[in-house]
Amino acid sequence: MNHQDVFVKMAKDNWQSQIKAFNHTLDKLSDEQLAQDIAPGRNSGTYLLGHLATVHDMMMPLLRFEANTLYPELTPVFLHAPDKTVPHTLTAAQLRAQWKEISDKLQAHIDSVPADEWFTRHNNISEEDFAKEPHRNRLNVLIGRTNHLSYHGGQVALLVPRK
Amino acid sequence: MNHQDVFVKMAKDNWQSQIKAFNHTLDKLSDEQLAQDIAPGRNSGTYLLGHLATVHDMMMPLLRFEANTLYPELTPVFLHAPDKTVPHTLTAAQLRAQWKEISDKLQAHIDSVPADEWFTRHNNISEEDFAKEPHRNRLNVLIGRTNHLSYHGGQVALLVPRK
Repeated sequence: MNHQDVFVKMAKDNWQSQIKAFNHTLDKLSDEQLAQDIAPGRNSGTYLLGHLATVHDMMMPLLRFEANTLYPELTPVFLHAPDKTVPHTLTAAQLRAQWKEISDKLQAHIDSVPADEWFTRHNNISEEDFAKEPHRNRLNVLIGRTNHLSYHGGQVALLVPRK
Repeated sequence: MNHQDVFVKMAKDNWQSQIKAFNHTLDKLSDEQLAQDIAPGRNSGTYLLGHLATVHDMMMPLLRFEANTLYPELTPVFLHAPDKTVPHTLTAAQLRAQWKEISDKLQAHIDSVPADEWFTRHNNISEEDFAKEPHRNRLNVLIGRTNHLSYHGGQVALLVPRK
Protein backbone atom coordinates (compact mmCIF):
# COMPACT_ATOMS: atom_id res chain seq x y z
CA MET A 1 0.00 0.00 0.00
CA ASN A 2 1.51 3.34 -0.96
CA HIS A 3 1.27 6.39 1.30
CA GLN A 4 -1.54 7.89 -0.74
CA ASP A 5 -3.71 4.79 -0.37
CA VAL A 6 -2.86 4.63 3.32
CA PHE A 7 -3.82 8.25 3.85
CA VAL A 8 -7.13 7.93 1.99
CA LYS A 9 -7.93 4.86 4.06
CA MET A 10 -7.14 6.75 7.27
CA ALA A 11 -9.42 9.65 6.34
CA LYS A 12 -12.24 7.30 5.30
CA ASP A 13 -11.84 5.10 8.40
CA ASN A 14 -11.95 8.16 10.65
CA TRP A 15 -15.09 9.39 8.90
CA GLN A 16 -16.77 6.03 9.29
CA SER A 17 -15.82 5.64 12.93
CA GLN A 18 -17.33 9.06 13.73
CA ILE A 19 -20.50 8.20 11.78
CA LYS A 20 -20.71 4.93 13.67
CA ALA A 21 -20.19 6.63 17.04
CA PHE A 22 -22.86 9.22 16.23
CA ASN A 23 -25.34 6.55 15.12
CA HIS A 24 -24.61 4.66 18.31
CA THR A 25 -25.51 7.78 20.29
CA LEU A 26 -28.67 8.29 18.22
CA ASP A 27 -29.75 4.70 18.81
CA LYS A 28 -29.55 5.22 22.55
CA LEU A 29 -31.91 8.21 22.46
CA SER A 30 -35.69 8.13 22.31
CA ASP A 31 -37.34 10.83 20.20
CA GLU A 32 -38.29 12.59 23.43
CA GLN A 33 -34.71 12.54 24.68
CA LEU A 34 -33.44 13.77 21.32
CA ALA A 35 -35.86 16.71 21.49
CA GLN A 36 -34.20 18.00 24.67
CA ASP A 37 -31.74 20.89 24.60
CA ILE A 38 -28.17 19.65 24.99
CA ALA A 39 -27.64 22.25 27.73
CA PRO A 40 -29.96 24.96 29.07
CA GLY A 41 -30.75 27.46 26.31
CA ARG A 42 -28.74 25.58 23.68
CA ASN A 43 -29.56 23.61 20.55
CA SER A 44 -31.82 20.58 20.81
CA GLY A 45 -30.58 17.17 19.74
CA THR A 46 -33.24 17.20 17.02
CA TYR A 47 -31.86 20.45 15.62
CA LEU A 48 -28.32 19.05 15.62
CA LEU A 49 -29.51 15.91 13.83
CA GLY A 50 -31.16 18.09 11.17
CA HIS A 51 -28.05 20.25 11.03
CA LEU A 52 -25.74 17.27 10.45
CA ALA A 53 -28.19 15.81 7.94
CA THR A 54 -28.25 18.95 5.80
CA VAL A 55 -24.49 19.56 6.06
CA HIS A 56 -23.83 15.99 4.95
CA ASP A 57 -26.48 16.22 2.24
CA MET A 58 -24.68 19.29 0.91
CA MET A 59 -21.46 17.27 0.68
CA MET A 60 -22.98 15.48 -2.32
CA PRO A 61 -22.87 18.47 -4.69
CA LEU A 62 -19.78 19.86 -2.92
CA LEU A 63 -17.84 16.65 -3.59
CA ARG A 64 -19.33 16.47 -7.10
CA PHE A 65 -21.13 13.20 -6.28
CA GLU A 66 -24.58 14.49 -7.20
CA ALA A 67 -25.96 17.58 -8.90
CA ASN A 68 -28.34 18.31 -6.04
CA THR A 69 -29.04 17.58 -2.42
CA LEU A 70 -31.71 15.05 -1.45
CA TYR A 71 -33.51 17.33 1.03
CA PRO A 72 -32.98 21.00 0.18
CA GLU A 73 -35.80 21.94 2.56
CA LEU A 74 -33.56 21.09 5.54
CA THR A 75 -31.03 23.85 4.82
CA PRO A 76 -33.08 26.96 5.73
CA VAL A 77 -34.28 25.32 8.95
CA PHE A 78 -31.15 23.58 10.21
CA LEU A 79 -28.26 25.50 8.69
CA HIS A 80 -29.28 29.05 7.82
CA ALA A 81 -31.31 29.64 10.97
CA PRO A 82 -30.73 28.99 14.67
CA ASP A 83 -32.76 26.37 16.51
CA LYS A 84 -36.37 27.19 17.37
CA THR A 85 -36.64 30.12 14.95
CA VAL A 86 -38.08 28.51 11.78
CA PRO A 87 -41.33 26.58 12.19
CA HIS A 88 -41.31 23.16 10.55
CA THR A 89 -43.36 19.99 10.71
CA LEU A 90 -40.53 17.45 10.52
CA THR A 91 -40.77 14.74 13.14
CA ALA A 92 -37.77 13.08 14.77
CA ALA A 93 -38.70 9.86 12.95
CA GLN A 94 -38.59 11.65 9.58
CA LEU A 95 -35.27 13.29 10.40
CA ARG A 96 -33.80 9.95 11.47
CA ALA A 97 -34.95 8.39 8.19
CA GLN A 98 -33.52 11.28 6.15
CA TRP A 99 -30.25 11.12 8.08
CA LYS A 100 -29.98 7.41 7.32
CA GLU A 101 -30.78 7.88 3.64
CA ILE A 102 -28.25 10.71 3.30
CA SER A 103 -25.60 8.73 5.23
CA ASP A 104 -26.07 5.61 3.13
CA LYS A 105 -26.00 7.43 -0.19
CA LEU A 106 -22.98 9.50 0.80
CA GLN A 107 -21.13 6.40 2.03
CA ALA A 108 -21.75 4.60 -1.26
CA HIS A 109 -20.21 7.54 -3.11
CA ILE A 110 -17.28 7.76 -0.69
CA ASP A 111 -16.56 4.07 -1.15
CA SER A 112 -16.48 4.42 -4.93
CA VAL A 113 -13.98 7.27 -5.30
CA PRO A 114 -10.56 6.08 -6.53
CA ALA A 115 -7.75 7.25 -4.20
CA ASP A 116 -6.30 9.66 -6.76
CA GLU A 117 -9.57 11.46 -7.28
CA TRP A 118 -9.82 12.51 -3.66
CA PHE A 119 -7.06 14.99 -4.47
CA THR A 120 -9.09 16.80 -7.09
CA ARG A 121 -10.83 20.06 -6.29
CA HIS A 122 -14.18 20.33 -4.59
CA ASN A 123 -16.98 22.39 -6.02
CA ASN A 124 -16.48 25.59 -3.99
CA ILE A 125 -13.08 26.46 -5.39
CA SER A 126 -12.15 27.64 -8.88
CA GLU A 127 -9.61 25.86 -11.09
CA GLU A 128 -7.32 28.89 -10.72
CA ASP A 129 -7.38 28.97 -6.93
CA PHE A 130 -7.03 25.20 -6.71
CA ALA A 131 -3.83 25.35 -8.75
CA LYS A 132 -2.39 27.55 -6.00
CA GLU A 133 -4.01 25.73 -3.05
CA PRO A 134 -4.02 22.00 -3.83
CA HIS A 135 -4.96 21.09 -0.25
CA ARG A 136 -8.43 22.47 -0.89
CA ASN A 137 -9.42 19.15 -2.37
CA ARG A 138 -12.26 16.69 -1.83
CA LEU A 139 -10.47 14.70 0.83
CA ASN A 140 -9.99 17.86 2.88
CA VAL A 141 -13.76 18.33 2.87
CA LEU A 142 -14.15 14.80 4.26
CA ILE A 143 -11.59 15.48 7.02
CA GLY A 144 -13.20 18.80 7.91
CA ARG A 145 -16.69 17.31 8.02
CA THR A 146 -15.40 14.49 10.23
CA ASN A 147 -14.29 17.10 12.78
CA HIS A 148 -17.61 18.89 12.46
CA LEU A 149 -19.44 15.63 13.15
CA SER A 150 -17.23 14.94 16.20
CA TYR A 151 -17.89 18.46 17.50
CA HIS A 152 -21.67 18.07 17.45
CA GLY A 153 -21.49 14.37 18.28
CA GLY A 154 -19.90 15.27 21.61
CA GLN A 155 -22.82 17.58 22.27
CA VAL A 156 -25.60 15.16 21.33
CA ALA A 157 -23.93 12.52 23.54
CA LEU A 158 -24.77 14.74 26.53
CA LEU A 159 -28.43 13.75 26.07
CA VAL A 160 -27.75 10.08 26.80
CA PRO A 161 -28.73 9.48 30.44
CA ARG A 162 -25.86 8.43 32.69
CA LYS A 163 -26.30 5.10 34.36
CA MET B 1 3.51 19.78 -4.09
CA ASN B 2 3.10 16.01 -4.30
CA HIS B 3 0.08 14.27 -2.80
CA GLN B 4 1.96 13.13 0.27
CA ASP B 5 2.97 16.68 1.15
CA VAL B 6 -0.59 17.81 0.47
CA PHE B 7 -2.20 15.35 2.84
CA VAL B 8 0.33 15.83 5.60
CA LYS B 9 -0.44 19.54 5.31
CA MET B 10 -4.19 18.81 5.43
CA ALA B 11 -3.89 16.74 8.60
CA LYS B 12 -1.62 19.31 10.26
CA ASP B 13 -3.83 22.25 9.22
CA ASN B 14 -6.90 20.50 10.59
CA TRP B 15 -5.12 19.82 13.87
CA GLN B 16 -4.04 23.43 14.16
CA SER B 17 -7.44 24.83 13.32
CA GLN B 18 -9.07 22.71 16.03
CA ILE B 19 -6.38 23.76 18.56
CA LYS B 20 -6.98 27.38 17.58
CA ALA B 21 -10.76 27.02 17.92
CA PHE B 22 -10.40 25.37 21.33
CA ASN B 23 -8.00 28.08 22.55
CA HIS B 24 -10.44 30.70 21.30
CA THR B 25 -13.17 29.06 23.42
CA LEU B 26 -10.83 28.88 26.45
CA ASP B 27 -9.96 32.57 26.10
CA LYS B 28 -13.63 33.47 26.29
CA LEU B 29 -14.12 31.67 29.60
CA SER B 30 -13.23 32.95 33.06
CA ASP B 31 -11.88 30.36 35.50
CA GLU B 32 -15.28 30.41 37.22
CA GLN B 33 -17.09 29.72 33.93
CA LEU B 34 -14.63 26.94 33.08
CA ALA B 35 -15.33 25.30 36.44
CA GLN B 36 -19.02 24.85 35.55
CA ASP B 37 -20.37 21.52 34.37
CA ILE B 38 -20.99 21.53 30.62
CA ALA B 39 -24.49 20.16 31.26
CA PRO B 40 -26.20 19.12 34.50
CA GLY B 41 -24.34 16.18 36.05
CA ARG B 42 -21.67 16.10 33.34
CA ASN B 43 -17.96 16.88 33.20
CA SER B 44 -16.77 20.35 34.15
CA GLY B 45 -14.86 22.48 31.66
CA THR B 46 -11.86 22.30 33.99
CA TYR B 47 -11.91 18.50 33.89
CA LEU B 48 -12.11 18.52 30.09
CA LEU B 49 -9.18 20.94 29.89
CA GLY B 50 -7.15 18.60 32.13
CA HIS B 51 -8.34 15.63 30.06
CA LEU B 52 -7.22 17.19 26.78
CA ALA B 53 -3.94 18.33 28.37
CA THR B 54 -3.03 14.82 29.51
CA VAL B 55 -4.17 13.14 26.28
CA HIS B 56 -2.06 15.57 24.25
CA ASP B 57 0.85 15.24 26.66
CA MET B 58 0.71 11.48 26.11
CA MET B 59 1.00 12.06 22.36
CA MET B 60 4.66 12.95 22.93
CA PRO B 61 5.83 9.44 23.85
CA LEU B 62 3.14 7.89 21.61
CA LEU B 63 4.48 9.75 18.57
CA ARG B 64 8.06 9.06 19.72
CA PHE B 65 8.73 12.80 20.17
CA GLU B 66 9.81 12.49 23.81
CA ALA B 67 10.60 9.64 26.17
CA ASN B 68 8.14 10.89 28.78
CA THR B 69 5.17 13.15 29.33
CA LEU B 70 5.62 16.58 30.87
CA TYR B 71 2.91 16.17 33.54
CA PRO B 72 2.35 12.49 34.38
CA GLU B 73 0.36 13.55 37.47
CA LEU B 74 -2.53 14.66 35.22
CA THR B 75 -3.24 11.16 33.91
CA PRO B 76 -4.74 9.52 37.02
CA VAL B 77 -6.95 12.55 37.65
CA PHE B 78 -8.12 13.50 34.16
CA LEU B 79 -7.89 10.28 32.15
CA HIS B 80 -8.09 7.23 34.39
CA ALA B 81 -10.82 8.61 36.64
CA PRO B 82 -14.11 10.39 36.05
CA ASP B 83 -14.56 14.04 37.01
CA LYS B 84 -14.96 14.88 40.71
CA THR B 85 -13.65 11.51 41.94
CA VAL B 86 -9.93 12.17 42.52
CA PRO B 87 -9.05 15.08 44.81
CA HIS B 88 -6.39 17.40 43.41
CA THR B 89 -5.07 20.89 44.09
CA LEU B 90 -4.57 22.03 40.50
CA THR B 91 -6.05 25.47 39.83
CA ALA B 92 -7.54 26.51 36.51
CA ALA B 93 -4.60 28.89 36.04
CA GLN B 94 -2.12 26.02 36.47
CA LEU B 95 -4.05 23.81 34.07
CA ARG B 96 -4.20 26.59 31.48
CA ALA B 97 -0.43 27.08 31.80
CA GLN B 98 0.21 23.34 31.47
CA TRP B 99 -2.12 23.11 28.49
CA LYS B 100 -0.22 25.92 26.79
CA GLU B 101 3.16 24.39 27.55
CA ILE B 102 2.06 20.97 26.25
CA SER B 103 0.45 22.53 23.15
CA ASP B 104 3.53 24.59 22.30
CA LYS B 105 5.95 21.72 22.77
CA LEU B 106 3.78 19.32 20.81
CA GLN B 107 3.34 21.82 17.98
CA ALA B 108 7.11 22.34 17.72
CA HIS B 109 7.54 18.58 17.31
CA ILE B 110 4.68 18.33 14.82
CA ASP B 111 6.22 21.09 12.72
CA SER B 112 9.57 19.35 12.61
CA VAL B 113 8.50 15.89 11.37
CA PRO B 114 9.40 15.31 7.70
CA ALA B 115 6.33 14.26 5.66
CA ASP B 116 7.63 10.71 5.11
CA GLU B 117 8.10 10.05 8.80
CA TRP B 118 4.43 10.60 9.58
CA PHE B 119 3.87 7.21 7.95
CA THR B 120 6.06 5.36 10.41
CA ARG B 121 4.54 3.43 13.28
CA HIS B 122 3.48 4.99 16.55
CA ASN B 123 4.64 3.60 19.87
CA ASN B 124 1.61 1.44 20.70
CA ILE B 125 1.98 -0.97 17.82
CA SER B 126 4.62 -3.61 17.26
CA GLU B 127 6.78 -3.79 14.14
CA GLU B 128 5.01 -7.04 13.17
CA ASP B 129 1.50 -5.62 13.44
CA PHE B 130 2.49 -2.41 11.71
CA ALA B 131 3.74 -4.39 8.71
CA LYS B 132 0.19 -5.72 8.33
CA GLU B 133 -1.61 -2.49 9.28
CA PRO B 134 0.35 0.44 7.85
CA HIS B 135 -2.48 2.88 8.53
CA ARG B 136 -1.71 2.62 12.25
CA ASN B 137 0.95 5.27 11.82
CA ARG B 138 1.81 8.53 13.52
CA LEU B 139 -0.32 10.65 11.20
CA ASN B 140 -3.36 8.56 12.08
CA VAL B 141 -2.79 9.41 15.74
CA LEU B 142 -2.83 13.10 14.82
CA ILE B 143 -6.08 12.70 12.85
CA GLY B 144 -7.72 10.72 15.65
CA ARG B 145 -6.67 13.21 18.31
CA THR B 146 -8.01 16.06 16.16
CA ASN B 147 -11.44 14.39 16.25
CA HIS B 148 -11.13 13.85 20.00
CA LEU B 149 -10.34 17.53 20.46
CA SER B 150 -13.34 18.54 18.31
CA TYR B 151 -15.59 16.23 20.33
CA HIS B 152 -14.72 17.81 23.67
CA GLY B 153 -14.28 21.27 22.13
CA GLY B 154 -17.94 21.23 21.16
CA GLN B 155 -18.77 20.46 24.77
CA VAL B 156 -16.59 23.13 26.37
CA ALA B 157 -18.05 25.68 23.93
CA LEU B 158 -21.39 25.18 25.69
CA LEU B 159 -19.95 27.09 28.68
CA VAL B 160 -19.53 30.31 26.69
CA PRO B 161 -22.49 32.55 27.53
CA ARG B 162 -24.74 33.34 24.59
CA LYS B 163 -25.07 37.01 23.81
